[in-house]
Order: sequence, then structure tokens, then C-alpha cells
Amino acid sequence: MTKPELIKQIATTFSEKIPFNKLIGLRIKQCEREICSVEFDNKPELVGNFVQGILHGGVIASSIDVAGGIMAAIGLMQKNPETHQQELLDKIAKLGTIDLRIDYVRPGRGSVFEATAKILRAGNKVAVVRMELHNEEGILIALGTGTYLIG
Amino acid sequence: MTKPELIKQIATTFSEKIPFNKLIGLRIKQCEREICSVEFDNKPELVGNFVQGILHGGVIASSIDVAGGIMAAIGLMQKNPETHQQELLDKIAKLGTIDLRIDYVRPGRGSVFEATAKILRAGNKVAVVRMELHNEEGILIALGTGTYLIG
Amino acid sequence: MTKPELIKQIATTFSEKIPFNKLIGLRIKQCEREICSVEFDNKPELVGNFVQGILHGGVIASSIDVAGGIMAAIGLMQKNPETHQQELLDKIAKLGTIDLRIDYVRPGRGSVFEATAKILRAGNKVAVVRMELHNEEGILIALGTGTYLIG
Amino acid sequence: MTKPELIKQIATTFSEKIPFNKLIGLRIKQCEREICSVEFDNKPELVGNFVQGILHGGVIASSIDVAGGIMAAIGLMQKNPETHQQELLDKIAKLGTIDLRIDYVRPGRGSVFEATAKILRAGNKVAVVRMELHNEEGILIALGTGTYLIG
Repeated sequence: MTKPELIKQIATTFSEKIPFNKLIGLRIKQCEREICSVEFDNKPELVGNFVQGILHGGVIASSIDVAGGIMAAIGLMQKNPETHQQELLDKIAKLGTIDLRIDYVRPGRGSVFEATAKILRAGNKVAVVRMELHNEEGILIALGTGTYLIG
Repeated sequence: MTKPELIKQIATTFSEKIPFNKLIGLRIKQCEREICSVEFDNKPELVGNFVQGILHGGVIASSIDVAGGIMAAIGLMQKNPETHQQELLDKIAKLGTIDLRIDYVRPGRGSVFEATAKILRAGNKVAVVRMELHNEEGILIALGTGTYLIG
Repeated sequence: MTKPELIKQIATTFSEKIPFNKLIGLRIKQCEREICSVEFDNKPELVGNFVQGILHGGVIASSIDVAGGIMAAIGLMQKNPETHQQELLDKIAKLGTIDLRIDYVRPGRGSVFEATAKILRAGNKVAVVRMELHNEEGILIALGTGTYLIG
Repeated sequence: MTKPELIKQIATTFSEKIPFNKLIGLRIKQCEREICSVEFDNKPELVGNFVQGILHGGVIASSIDVAGGIMAAIGLMQKNPETHQQELLDKIAKLGTIDLRIDYVRPGRGSVFEATAKILRAGNKVAVVRMELHNEEGILIALGTGTYLIG
């Protein structure tokens, strides 16, 4: 299996085999060496403020965490170019979020949302990733920074 | 309507009128002057790691944010003891999370989880709240700190 | 006094009238509408790890917080273009950091460091700013995100 | 050298051999298995707001980071009770802050300040520590949460 196929497999796992990702409706949009993104559609059950009809903060945090986690997994792959594929998948299965910061900058209004992640540092043990959530008009809704345990 | 009734109304609104809270199954457990908590049961669709069967980080973040938000709403009420009830409800409807930090300290294993919030500062504009998530055995799973815009 | 003069006055105040900024040796490098930066030289008393000779984490946090605070002050000015200058200076004197997150991505090695801040949201009450610290070779040493009370 | 002697040596190193700690005037106050604290006196060069005469946010962040780092070092010792002392000191020399969140809850007024740290999780690779800064009257000034790389 080549690297692009491995990336594709990671992407499929994240959107199809993780129950809570399915519940929200997260799907991988982009998955490159330095940038990854997930997107999801607005739907009634994701609403947090029924008066204003805006996204729940937890949905925002979830999508941002998932985008960051996928980015960290890609970072881990790139740090270990020689590692056998099964070993990589085992490492990725153990990858976890150490901590996450979310800044809610504007109300979550829109019909489609994209959480984009960019890796800023992939060390031997920890990856640091910055995330942003935009709606379909490109309005910035939230920022995130996450650290992920990768080794 | 007295203060305890108002607190009860806030609690009902949070668990019954917010679609995403219902999706997760969040219910208010405790709601006092300085401490509030929400609880929820583990269920298959909240899982984030299908190999290990543990809670999704986004579920953890969501429950912690909700506990913190309720605590901030109670804090807002206490800062404004003389304010008319409808005005208070209007303020609470506008209350929003500014930012949130989550520390994932142990895997989210268990059958019932409780997110507890304690208010550390209720200023005129911003409330600072610290949160903890435990499972039914009292194991600490995650920590949170949130700032909420209350004025 | 025109806006550029006001910006200059803010810059002077930050680097000359704030004792702890002087102690570190912080000076304003850049101060534009959407980006601001401060720089400082490495010196023995800023060291945190005497074995490795690297910057103390507190020095990194300090420079990042100062860059973010100046950026928030500029943001506040731009939100209030019609406000009288003395009123602006009064508001700026009350501006405060609500919270700050620092990610230490690489050891603080180098001879000159620059903390750059970019404003991502200037609301009526809160500004959200992202920061980065680089050394003279452009190596990224730390990231920051801060929220500042501006109203 | 016994454990208490080792703790004493760590404490001495932190307050005497780290130049920036000396510049601020940080000294170890308490150093137990689950709680550590550092204290420092207010002095003119630590001021951040010359109008209000309050502590610079960077001084607050520095003292909170140091208290957390010492706590993480003690946590590391306790995780490795059988490890030879020199090996422990080597590990401690490499210990680093991964990230830090500071919440500024009240202005830094007072004459003596104490930053207290409590360890919430010491894993194999990462320790999570919560911190608080109080003045001599017990007024809470700032909160912190830090993650430290310990393995």
C-alpha cells in the first residue's frame, strides 16, 4: 500500500468507523502533507442556541479536534517514512489529544462548515496543530490549537 | 418566579430545548450557587475510538462546555440579584463561550459521566469557570477551563 | 494628533513606560493595522535552562502577551475611529488580557527574538489575537493565542 | 541522597541556578508530593501597568509556569521511585513545558504573591498540572493549566 492509499484509508476510518463523527456527519475534505480539513452540513440536531439557530459549541470543538487529529496522524506518518504500514496504523490508533483550546470568534451560522488544520510542529512525542473553522462564505467562526501525543 | 424556580427553568431549557444536548443525552444533575454539573450515559454513538470503545473527545468537550455555560448563567444571575427575570433570561440567551481549554487526562471509559463546573470569577463582563469530567467510579477523565461573556 | 502619531505614542508607552518590558528589553518592531511585533535580544538573565542556555518560558510568554496586547490596542483604535484621542488612551489603559495560551514548540535558542501578533477578531468587548515567536533565523519557537478585554 | 534531599536540591536549582527566576525573585515555598508553590515579592520592575501599579502579565505567567514545572519534576520522581538519582536529574533537566494556559482573573495587586501547583495527572510522557496565583491576602489573581513533557 502506498502513502496516498494509506492516507485514503486513514480518511475513510475517521469518517466511517468513528460513531460520533458519523453522528455529526463529518467527512474528510482535504488531506495533504501540511494541511487537512473536514466538513459537515448544518442540521437541526447540531444546534446549540434554539433562539438564534446557531451551532452548538461542542459541535465546533468536535470538528476542530477531528481535523487536528487527522493532521497529527499525517504528521506522524511523515516523521516515520520507513515504518511498516501496520506499525503506523497501530501508532495512529493510539494517537490521542493531550489538550485543545477553542476560541469562539463568531456565531456558528451557515449551511456548510469546514474545519481546516495545519501542522506547526511534529516532534518525536508531541504534534502541535492549529485549526480554523469557516462557513461556506469563508467567515471565520472559531480557532483551535491542539497538542497530540504521537509517540 | 423565585430564584430556585428560575434556576430550574434554566436547567430545563439547557437539557430539553438545546438539540445537541439532547442528541448527547445531557441532563442537569446539580445546580447550586457555586457548583453545577451535568451527566450523561455512555452509548455507542458517542464513541470516538472504535478499537478501544472510549468516548469521543468532542463529547467530552461538549459536556464540559455545557456545564461551564450553566455555571456562568448562574453566576450572571447572582451578579444581578435585583434584575427582573425576563431581562435575566434575555441576558442568559446571549451568554456565549469566549474560549475553552480541555485537557484529556485519561481515556473516556465508563458507563455514566459527570461534568462538574465551579465558578472562580464572575466579573461584570466575563466569567471564568473550571470544569472536571469524572466517570461513575470517580476517575478523572478530563479538565476544562472556560471563559464566558456574561455582560 | 493623527492616527499614526497615536500608534507611535502607544508603541513608546509600551516599551518605555512599562517597567517589566524594559527589564526584558522589549522594543516595538512593527505596528500596523493587522499585524504588530515586538523584538528583544537574548541576554544572560533571560535564560531558563542554564545547562542548555535557552530562554525561560516566562520570557517567551511575556513577549507573546505584550505583542498581543499591543495588537488588541490597535484593534480597539480601529473599532472606534471617531473616538476622541484621550478617551481612546483611557480605554487602552484599561485593556487587559483575559487569558493566554502558549505552545512551546522548540527550545528558545537564538540571539534576537521577534513576537508577531495578528488580530483575528475585534468584537465590541473582546479581541482575539494569534501570536508567534521566531528567532533571527526564522525558526518558530512558540505559538500563542490570547483574548483581550477591549470594551 | 534520599528523596527529601533530592527535592531540596531541585528546589535550590530552580531558585538559584535559573537566571530569570532570580531576576523575578522567585523562591520555593512548599514542595510536597502533590502540591508545590513558589513565592515572590512585588517590586517596581515587575510592574506592567504603571498607572495602576499592578503586576505584568508576563510575571504572573512566569511564576505559574515555574510552579507547574517544579510540580511536574516532583511527579516525575514519584513515577520513577527506583530510578537512580543522576538519571532522575538528567530527566528533570530535559523536562519542558508543552503548553500553558493562563487566566487573569483579577488585577495583580499585593506585596507578596504565591503560585501554587497541584498535579492532576502524571502519565508516562505527559504531566498535567493546575496552578493558582494568590496575593498575601488570599485573593485569587490568576489560574493556570500546564502540560509538561516528562518522559
